[in-house]
Amino acid sequence: MLLPALLSEISSHDFEVAETLIGVLRFVLIFVAARSLAELLVRFELPTILGELLAGVIIGASGLHLLVPPETQVQLSGVFSNVVGGIAHIPPDEIPEIYNESFGALQAVSNLGLFSLLFLTGLESELEELIAVGAQAFSVAVVGVVLPFALGTLGLMGIFHVDPVQAIFAGASMTATSIGITASVFGELGYLRTREGQIVIGAAVLDDILGIVILAVVVSLAAGGTLEIAPIVQLVVAAVLFVVVALVLSQKAAPAFDWVVDQLKAPGGKLIGSYLLLGASCFIATAIGLEAALGAFAAGLIASTSKHRHEIQAAVTPIVGLFATVFFVLVGAGMDLSVINPSDPSARSALVIAGFMFLVAIVGKVVAGWAVFGPQKTNKLVVGLGMLPRGEVGLIFLGLGTAAKLLSPGLEIAILLMVIGTTFLAPVLLRLVLKDKPPEDGNEVPEEFAADPLAGAS
Amino acid sequence: MLLPALLSEISSHDFEVAETLIGVLRFVLIFVAARSLAELLVRFELPTILGELLAGVIIGASGLHLLVPPETQVQLSGVFSNVVGGIAHIPPDEIPEIYNESFGALQAVSNLGLFSLLFLTGLESELEELIAVGAQAFSVAVVGVVLPFALGTLGLMGIFHVDPVQAIFAGASMTATSIGITASVFGELGYLRTREGQIVIGAAVLDDILGIVILAVVVSLAAGGTLEIAPIVQLVVAAVLFVVVALVLSQKAAPAFDWVVDQLKAPGGKLIGSYLLLGASCFIATAIGLEAALGAFAAGLIASTSKHRHEIQAAVTPIVGLFATVFFVLVGAGMDLSVINPSDPSARSALVIAGFMFLVAIVGKVVAGWAVFGPQKTNKLVVGLGMLPRGEVGLIFLGLGTAAKLLSPGLEIAILLMVIGTTFLAPVLLRLVLKDKPPEDGNEVPEEFAADPLAGAS
Repeated sequence: MLLPALLSEISSHDFEVAETLIGVLRFVLIFVAARSLAELLVRFELPTILGELLAGVIIGASGLHLLVPPETQVQLSGVFSNVVGGIAHIPPDEIPEIYNESFGALQAVSNLGLFSLLFLTGLESELEELIAVGAQAFSVAVVGVVLPFALGTLGLMGIFHVDPVQAIFAGASMTATSIGITASVFGELGYLRTREGQIVIGAAVLDDILGIVILAVVVSLAAGGTLEIAPIVQLVVAAVLFVVVALVLSQKAAPAFDWVVDQLKAPGGKLIGSYLLLGASCFIATAIGLEAALGAFAAGLIASTSKHRHEIQAAVTPIVGLFATVFFVLVGAGMDLSVINPSDPSARSALVIAGFMFLVAIVGKVVAGWAVFGPQKTNKLVVGLGMLPRGEVGLIFLGLGTAAKLLSPGLEIAILLMVIGTTFLAPVLLRLVLKDKPPEDGNEVPEEFAADPLAGAS
Repeated sequence: MLLPALLSEISSHDFEVAETLIGVLRFVLIFVAARSLAELLVRFELPTILGELLAGVIIGASGLHLLVPPETQVQLSGVFSNVVGGIAHIPPDEIPEIYNESFGALQAVSNLGLFSLLFLTGLESELEELIAVGAQAFSVAVVGVVLPFALGTLGLMGIFHVDPVQAIFAGASMTATSIGITASVFGELGYLRTREGQIVIGAAVLDDILGIVILAVVVSLAAGGTLEIAPIVQLVVAAVLFVVVALVLSQKAAPAFDWVVDQLKAPGGKLIGSYLLLGASCFIATAIGLEAALGAFAAGLIASTSKHRHEIQAAVTPIVGLFATVFFVLVGAGMDLSVINPSDPSARSALVIAGFMFLVAIVGKVVAGWAVFGPQKTNKLVVGLGMLPRGEVGLIFLGLGTAAKLLSPGLEIAILLMVIGTTFLAPVLLRLVLKDKPPEDGNEVPEEFAADPLAGAS
């Protein structure tokens, strides 16, 4: 670790002890909080990812100030400083500086969790199942992406006079359904193998792809700060091409990938091979002006048809389990809930915007359920409700938008509440609707979805 | 990520792109180099860990300058700066600063790999097998720790006039045999279940414990810079107590740990539970003045009798596979080989010291083989040679010693060469000695050792 010169009056040993204590304590706090809340929520049959978010809010900038990202400018808890300072023999008022100094390491670990999670999401995309319900799923996905994106963006600009770049970003954050949460709720109710279940999963895979393409374009655009047509077209073309190439490679290049991996004789070859693919794909995506996150997802798509897929999945899952938790908790920790304090008149507009986004997020996806066509009987409400939870992809939007400083605090909170609200509502409403109707055709759950595919992540 | 104010003339988007590219490229370079060398060595039936070290030397401060820890003060390769600068539209001469700024994240990931590796080493300690060959193993372990430690420390002080703290540290670095490498060589030769194999594994577990206790004491002491009796006694007592408590807990507390883990209903509970145990143990070790590394090892000992041990092992192995590689490559990358350039007269003393340490490291452990007593026939040379490889524990000494700036560049290289030399020599010599003698009593390899227990790490 680098010793900042300004702390030269502190012995380098005490400094290192303090750094180790801060790192370990931060890690322990994240996991104790995330696990406690996740265990609570799982007992109410709610997605554990909500627990990780709430854990972040509780120990973060809006709560106990134990986990405070430096960019929030929030003062670290005095208890934390006193404990670490006391043990390491360093004046407690020096602790916040060491804390901030070493925060980049936690963000690096969190990014690693994010990229691993996106890789796993791509890896678990059932492209073949998708083709079976292709037309229906495509129709639901497109309506479910276009509607919330258009309504959200135009509404935020027209009604609330939000800056166009921010409005587009917030609109885009409502596009992608969480495959993991949807699949686990349907699986648990025995509805995964029904026509509705298959359409929802297919549409969720497709809108992940559409959503992550939009994300890649929006973040790159917004970084420029202006909205010109030429770069938008250029980025959209690049992003679509990138995903198309990944999809083609997933059909064609998997044998080559498998051949390379089979040549590796030293232990751990499949995992290292996968992370090299992940790294190369992130590098290419970044180099052509897209988000690294898109590269991670595309790498997962490419590996999804590998014959080693299940082994890769087994090796990546614990990595996601540890580090994606850090990502979700950090997202919650960075939120400033004071901007929606209802007793503060100036904060009310943020609350109204949050309400608007929540409504659009629900209406957009429920209406998408009616995009199912054809003669077969389909419960369109079930399809619509199944598309509700935004979960991890919504949070990836939020995390990247916050990191790129694209969003006002009010919009950050609005996105957070939209994600929490839809992810909370979907299982509750689906259980109500499906309670009395046993699934019509068998409820055999395929192995892939028997457990929450995000098992590790929560 | 934090934007340093001094780079304000660069747009924050370009800065972030550069930061992402540097992070991803560094990661890809580490794994391409480590994997290539590991694949090469495994074809000569040599331990892959040697490949990871050499990979670090090749891309590091003594080689291509692609992976340069900031503390080495070595200039980053111009090729690296030009590639990243070109893609991110940043002047190449600004790249080294961003590179150094973000190096802490890589070191954090490397520490995570180190702690996970030590946890896994503790977890895989076969305490019951140890008891079976207890007295013999204990005798070999003690002689094999005391002899190199005493000969090394006294020789370095007496013959080469090395500073006492450095001499003690270098002596201590020769104490611990690598369980992983030894077990994999014996396993491969079908000798693991022989009397010799069992004694060596038992002694390797014991000298790991002794070695890590010595490490915890020496690093803490050396940080103070002085050698007084009172703090030495205090630290030795603390370290021994800490390990004894961990050993007692491994017999008594595993049911409690299992009970807690069994209550966890959200997915991933065993892994999170293990890392919380790891975090808490590292925190306590650091808080009472010992090394966090000892805490990580002790946590593994505690979990080693858990009924979930195999599941925990399966989940931790991929994490070690990715991140311990980063640790080993970074150790190699930080080495300055110019200090042993034989054509430079002032560098010759470093080479002589390296030769001396190599010799002591071999003699100390081979003689320890003759510490086997009792009426049963035992091939004492096989036991001695089996104890040779210092592998990962030697490197942990080196990594921590370098990080704490305890060692002169010459001693760092001497330790590196001692580790490389013994780890290279052991499998070669053992194969020569054992070539014509099939094992006497069965060569059934227990499941735990059928594969390299460090499988993930290499």
